[in-house]
Amino acid sequence: MHKHPEPRASASGLSQGKIWLVGAGPGDPELLTIKAVRALSEADVIAYDELISDEILALAPPHAERIPVGRRAKGCRYHEDKIHPAVIERAREGKTVVRLKGGDPMIFGRGGEEAEEIAAAGLAFEIVPGISAALGAAAATGIPLTHREEASSVTFATAHASSGDGDPKLAVTVPITGTVVLYMGLGRLAETASSLINAGRAPSTPVAVIAHATRPTQRLVIGTLETIAEDVARAQLPAPALIVVGDVVSRAVTAETLLALAS
Amino acid sequence: MHKHPEPRASASGLSQGKIWLVGAGPGDPELLTIKAVRALSEADVIAYDELISDEILALAPPHAERIPVGRRAKGCRYHEDKIHPAVIERAREGKTVVRLKGGDPMIFGRGGEEAEEIAAAGLAFEIVPGISAALGAAAATGIPLTHREEASSVTFATAHASSGDGDPKLAVTVPITGTVVLYMGLGRLAETASSLINAGRAPSTPVAVIAHATRPTQRLVIGTLETIAEDVARAQLPAPALIVVGDVVSRAVTAETLLALAS
Repeated sequence: MHKHPEPRASASGLSQGKIWLVGAGPGDPELLTIKAVRALSEADVIAYDELISDEILALAPPHAERIPVGRRAKGCRYHEDKIHPAVIERAREGKTVVRLKGGDPMIFGRGGEEAEEIAAAGLAFEIVPGISAALGAAAATGIPLTHREEASSVTFATAHASSGDGDPKLAVTVPITGTVVLYMGLGRLAETASSLINAGRAPSTPVAVIAHATRPTQRLVIGTLETIAEDVARAQLPAPALIVVGDVVSRAVTAETLLALAS
Repeated sequence: MHKHPEPRASASGLSQGKIWLVGAGPGDPELLTIKAVRALSEADVIAYDELISDEILALAPPHAERIPVGRRAKGCRYHEDKIHPAVIERAREGKTVVRLKGGDPMIFGRGGEEAEEIAAAGLAFEIVPGISAALGAAAATGIPLTHREEASSVTFATAHASSGDGDPKLAVTVPITGTVVLYMGLGRLAETASSLINAGRAPSTPVAVIAHATRPTQRLVIGTLETIAEDVARAQLPAPALIVVGDVVSRAVTAETLLALAS
């Protein structure tokens, strides 16, 4: 549909490759899109986030070069500000490169910034959306993100403070009503819950914390803004986890979530 | 993963069927998940939103019963408040029913409300997430929804006023900073843009309106909060369209979107 101009011959006369910026979804390999699977099947190179499972990586041809990218990837210093240089280099060599990112490439995780670098390099690219963690967690727990009677908006935010300009506080990045989903916020749960109470949310507002959503290791803890930090600490919930704040939590429809609500 | 209890024998001795509540994504059939395709392939019955394309419906077996559901579906009076009664009836008859909804079932479109009814009926069900329109539009236009320097949150809201309790106004359902994506808001674009300016957003804030995102008929108009209603009227953009408000619009990476920005 909306593709960058077709690959053109480089100055050296070699034809250029293509970079696919692909969302791998929340974890369950069945939640990849058909298009993501097609991109993977055509890959000469996959540069993947550290949380992408082996099951998903197995969708690329066995001979494809596999490059782990991320905070804990050995020797990788590029996770903070830059796309991994091999992504650009391999595409310039004429290879088909899949940059595989958890969730959706345009929501958090700096996919937009990586796309800017790819575009600036003048390389052909295509972006494939993915099921963002919030959508995966909602389906897996039966917690709707919007609801006619409970929430007419849903906001995705991070509990990480931005180190960029403005350092927006949670109070200005989330509205005073509606559902809030916090990505990557497990380590700051107590502060985040306090911030939301200070911003005017009731301490009794229900909160669900979902670890490893859509994976076999999925775990769910439900509490309120007042209790959730303690609830999660007691349950020793592992990262990565997603935090869903709002009355929609009480509208959960699956038996397991209802059980957690009642306990 | 997280399923309702397995189907149990009904009072009449017949085994009960199962209802899949499935997100069909933004339009492009390649943006269905593998799991959605599997659910469709097992369907005895598909009850589908009116905007679902024939290409997607063709993924169900030819013999599957096809039931259109929606505002313009002939004789259907159930779109406002209730799941189509045939969904429940057919599942009670032991059939595998796919309730296929545009986008993601847990974001707008009352999927949560339909899930509540299914759960209340005591039927086995499973929810399959989908690529919500905002994610599809972001990938197809190269407009990131969050960006380290521009937006640390993204809010999905509707421009429809809720007829439920509270009638929340846009000013309380979206924050004062961050990206805002409005679903189903084309008909109220002028009022919405004014509301956002009144709520403190700069009149020069960039706005992208994307009609038919990810479909071959996709069209894009870019303007500012001050100009967008007129820009869209002049371009005669058709519904359904998605409205993306925020500085992320200026961070678009695809050639086509950059062209629209420059014009």
